[in-house]
Amino acid sequence: MSLPNTPMAHALALARQALPLAPPNPGVGCVIVSPDGTVLGQGHTQRAGGAHAEIVALHDATAQGRSVAGATAYVTLEPCAHHGRTGPCCDALVAAGIGRVVACVVDPNPLVAGQGFARLRAAGVEVVVGPGAEAARELNLGFFSRMQRGVPWVRMKLAASLDGRTALPDGQSQWITGAAARRDGHAWRARAGAVLTGIGTVLEDNPRLDVRLVDTPRQPGVVLVDSRLQVPLDAHLFIAGRAITIYAAARNDAKEAALRERGATVVHMPGADGKVDLRAMLRDLAQREVNELHVEAGEKLNGSLVRDGLVDELLVYLAPRLIGQGRGMAAFGPLSALGDAVPLQFKSVDAVGGDVRIVARIAGRDVF
Amino acid sequence: MSLPNTPMAHALALARQALPLAPPNPGVGCVIVSPDGTVLGQGHTQRAGGAHAEIVALHDATAQGRSVAGATAYVTLEPCAHHGRTGPCCDALVAAGIGRVVACVVDPNPLVAGQGFARLRAAGVEVVVGPGAEAARELNLGFFSRMQRGVPWVRMKLAASLDGRTALPDGQSQWITGAAARRDGHAWRARAGAVLTGIGTVLEDNPRLDVRLVDTPRQPGVVLVDSRLQVPLDAHLFIAGRAITIYAAARNDAKEAALRERGATVVHMPGADGKVDLRAMLRDLAQREVNELHVEAGEKLNGSLVRDGLVDELLVYLAPRLIGQGRGMAAFGPLSALGDAVPLQFKSVDAVGGDVRIVARIAGRDVF
Repeated sequence: MSLPNTPMAHALALARQALPLAPPNPGVGCVIVSPDGTVLGQGHTQRAGGAHAEIVALHDATAQGRSVAGATAYVTLEPCAHHGRTGPCCDALVAAGIGRVVACVVDPNPLVAGQGFARLRAAGVEVVVGPGAEAARELNLGFFSRMQRGVPWVRMKLAASLDGRTALPDGQSQWITGAAARRDGHAWRARAGAVLTGIGTVLEDNPRLDVRLVDTPRQPGVVLVDSRLQVPLDAHLFIAGRAITIYAAARNDAKEAALRERGATVVHMPGADGKVDLRAMLRDLAQREVNELHVEAGEKLNGSLVRDGLVDELLVYLAPRLIGQGRGMAAFGPLSALGDAVPLQFKSVDAVGGDVRIVARIAGRDVF
Repeated sequence: MSLPNTPMAHALALARQALPLAPPNPGVGCVIVSPDGTVLGQGHTQRAGGAHAEIVALHDATAQGRSVAGATAYVTLEPCAHHGRTGPCCDALVAAGIGRVVACVVDPNPLVAGQGFARLRAAGVEVVVGPGAEAARELNLGFFSRMQRGVPWVRMKLAASLDGRTALPDGQSQWITGAAARRDGHAWRARAGAVLTGIGTVLEDNPRLDVRLVDTPRQPGVVLVDSRLQVPLDAHLFIAGRAITIYAAARNDAKEAALRERGATVVHMPGADGKVDLRAMLRDLAQREVNELHVEAGEKLNGSLVRDGLVDELLVYLAPRLIGQGRGMAAFGPLSALGDAVPLQFKSVDAVGGDVRIVARIAGRDVF
């Protein structure tokens, strides 16, 4: 955040708090400030179906007996103008007498983009757009991706030794990184719309892939790539009440019926090679309102996703150990020349416990 | 350095400057300060055979017409008491009238340790030992290793993609990292006593392994592990005037004679497996006064060195790219359990150009 100690920096911090709560909505923050600089009310997006940030901030002011007439609302995304799960925020801001709205960025939803601002201006509210735009977009890159590209933002999480090994040759991988890195990984899971894995990981590790090591107001869904519907009905992935979507290439009516009984949604998405069409799967996941897709898979599925150009970001934890022979991060290639390597851009490098966390983007993927 | 703005911090900074110059001597810094805090003279170790830090600092004071009678000499290592390539520094300090010597650490050479201090005290000079000890030892860990363990400090340099690949499967490896990382790598080469590589790297890449990308007052020697004496006589490793030591397991009188004609020293060091005995090689290199051994080899030799427990430190450059299938950092194992992984400790993580540099130590190797 490049706006310290400003109302918009405050609103962005509120928006960040909403990230594990808001999906599939964007995480938005709102701060209402009087002409003399007093904070009258503040809030962030609640769970889907609950109040938007602007409504929470207006209620906050009312609850404290403060009038917002003539005040400025700082909001990290264009206020909505449509009746979705809730009423239009624009109308509420106008009704409360807000004099000025400062927003980071236009709503990327092509159906609504700009209409909120137009509605505010039509009601005589001054509108300023732009401050904090980059930070606001970064916070909700998954929502922007779904709206503007029609696919989720795909983040691949990897835990490896310094020499890039994610498992022994026999598959042993628990635990390469330390407790702090595992907790941090759960915090990233928590903000995702869904966690994706492959059948190989399920058969080998039988993971739950839920958020356990950090508090969360919401569990992300699970997405399983299982071309031949091999998932055992008693796999740990099946957790009561959690959404699970299984992408298959083959048909198996009996198994599908049993999986549906376990609460799963089974989607047929066969590709040309008899495996799941991963590109089509991502489009389908966007239709299912997944903003951020958090990938925790083995080197084969990771390799397919990288090879097909479907990965946007890497979240890599490197542990202070050497493993030597073992599995890699993503089994694609071999490349014929080093110039064909997938170019990345390091976004951040941080110590997390005794491990190092590197966030890297596939170069250019965040330009859309 | 944890001693900012002190004479000893100044002396340690001078010692650091001496690192590419001093081998096989340790890099030492000396600052002579008057009782009122004026710096009277300063200096660091010169090339082997040249003046030690104390002598340079005394000359510096003399050249400026300053008397050092009653002054304090801050020096990062115990002043020498023996006639080596130069006269004893102790005698020069005493003759100049130095009243007090503050030294970081005792000379680790078991033949001289403590004798310098004893000689100074016998001449009535006050001696304080300890300030900056850890930093002084760190700077010259190679010298301490050679003196105390009888082997060089072995630093393995690796340049890899984020997914831990050092080359394509066919061996292509130029260039994975960027220009800044390559320059930085040359700066680390420059402080080494020798650069070690294996015959596989020579046959595939034909490297020079000299210091070209940064200025250096001295070129490190080259050490080649070449069990069957396969090195071509026109390999780029043969650079006029540079020391090259070739370790072999097999004998080949004609080839050896030809190699000696090219200026190489050939050493027979056969191990039980028909390959070079790497452990014995390290002891031999210490006899040949190599303090820091800078390893730039392929995954096979790297793997052998790690497996045999001969590596002390890793200098890893990670480039922002993914390679997928390819060669790894060190081909040892497979391990039977993750608990058998080689434990490291991250010493530093820094951006170098667009790459990330990680210095890691094999846990516990610096305790000797």
